[in-house]
Amino acid sequence: MIAENRRVSEPVKVVSIERLDGESRTAHADRVVVEAPLQLRARGTPVATIMRTPGNDLELVRGLLYAESVAAAVFAQVDDDAVEIDVDPAAFAGRGLLASAACGVCGRVAIADLELRAREIVADTAIDAWVLATLPQTLRDAQSLFGQTGGLHAAALCTLSGEVVAVREDVGRHNAVDKLVGWALVERVEPARHVLFLSGRLGYELVQKAIMLGVPIVAAVSAPSSLAIELAERFGVGLVGFVRGDRCNVYAHAWRVR
Amino acid sequence: MIAENRRVSEPVKVVSIERLDGESRTAHADRVVVEAPLQLRARGTPVATIMRTPGNDLELVRGLLYAESVAAAVFAQVDDDAVEIDVDPAAFAGRGLLASAACGVCGRVAIADLELRAREIVADTAIDAWVLATLPQTLRDAQSLFGQTGGLHAAALCTLSGEVVAVREDVGRHNAVDKLVGWALVERVEPARHVLFLSGRLGYELVQKAIMLGVPIVAAVSAPSSLAIELAERFGVGLVGFVRGDRCNVYAHAWRVR
Repeated sequence: MIAENRRVSEPVKVVSIERLDGESRTAHADRVVVEAPLQLRARGTPVATIMRTPGNDLELVRGLLYAESVAAAVFAQVDDDAVEIDVDPAAFAGRGLLASAACGVCGRVAIADLELRAREIVADTAIDAWVLATLPQTLRDAQSLFGQTGGLHAAALCTLSGEVVAVREDVGRHNAVDKLVGWALVERVEPARHVLFLSGRLGYELVQKAIMLGVPIVAAVSAPSSLAIELAERFGVGLVGFVRGDRCNVYAHAWRVR
Repeated sequence: MIAENRRVSEPVKVVSIERLDGESRTAHADRVVVEAPLQLRARGTPVATIMRTPGNDLELVRGLLYAESVAAAVFAQVDDDAVEIDVDPAAFAGRGLLASAACGVCGRVAIADLELRAREIVADTAIDAWVLATLPQTLRDAQSLFGQTGGLHAAALCTLSGEVVAVREDVGRHNAVDKLVGWALVERVEPARHVLFLSGRLGYELVQKAIMLGVPIVAAVSAPSSLAIELAERFGVGLVGFVRGDRCNVYAHAWRVR
């Protein structure tokens, strides 16, 4: 019953991680979801880039164009990273809507841009694993401010000894981090000695925001994407997922977790 | 330690729901997270609209402008729904990046637009509560296709008797729904006799996509936002959250759950 498009890339990727469980620390292979850019071209002209998990790309484009009321007839998957549609590129001029639905930008552009703009990530900051283990409960306590609606993402800036310096919440996880960054810019905290801790999943844009602020360790209660891991690797950020009890998975720069 | 901006609106709202728990069905007051548009104005000209949870709005704008490398000096909260910044509006021309970070559009515009474009939501479709209760496990079984990375959002179109017709997964929850919509448009399924079931939270854009497709019931394992509820109310969509075991909360058009 389930129609499948041509599978052009794998939706899941195997990566090497270090798994911390109490006192034990072991190397593992872990499966993470792939996050990769898909370029939308209107008669050859790039009009949008969509960060997505590969697979069913033509359906994705069809659904997106439907949401945006863009009538385009002919679709073709040009290669793994691009879909061609038969419509005048002018149909996309000034379309904040489509750009909005197409959250994120091409990974390569983003990385080149980051290299120009990122603060230097300090070399020696590390955190004790037992401190990391306290952060989920600390975050829940701090969140109780807004009550338990179950619908809020939280982002916290924490010290290396596990104190919450500030926590911000929002229905959008990017917004929660933007609020925290806006606060940190005004307060002039020293991000190089802090950890960014998140209640949800770790997409690449969140790691990107951490790099721009200069935070060397990003941790979350849930899973990172492939592109989040690549970005963390590249910029020296310690990336930790599935922080639950005294367990966690370290996906990049494991030496930052002691 | 936590700096607070002027609190202009409440981040949480109390709504009336029907709570189903096995055989019992009772009215409750429930707290949901507020999702509302914030307009960004550059010297009076609207340049972006951000869907966010009210609170710390100036920090949000500061963090967003930092991420976009827009230098703007003077910020003022004009009213509950708008922030004024002192920068030439031309700085935002063609900035897909900012539009991207500013996911979503003003609720009022969106609703007016939907009224023009939405398919008619059929009046009589309803689902049995016990069928709803089976959907989380059914979705997990269908998801095992891509393995349990813990990082994928899933969206499924299900019949009123609980069969999954199609399921799509993506690192982005909007993408998962767009893929499903793209599939449904090609397959010409009759959306009026189906339920859209989602693995995550229910933001307004997901309800919007369901309305455009003509699906009368949207259910999810997690919480809806205030704007998702308003949209569902307005367009006759049954909106169900926290579908867990034989419990669920119905936030709009409770008669659609028998």
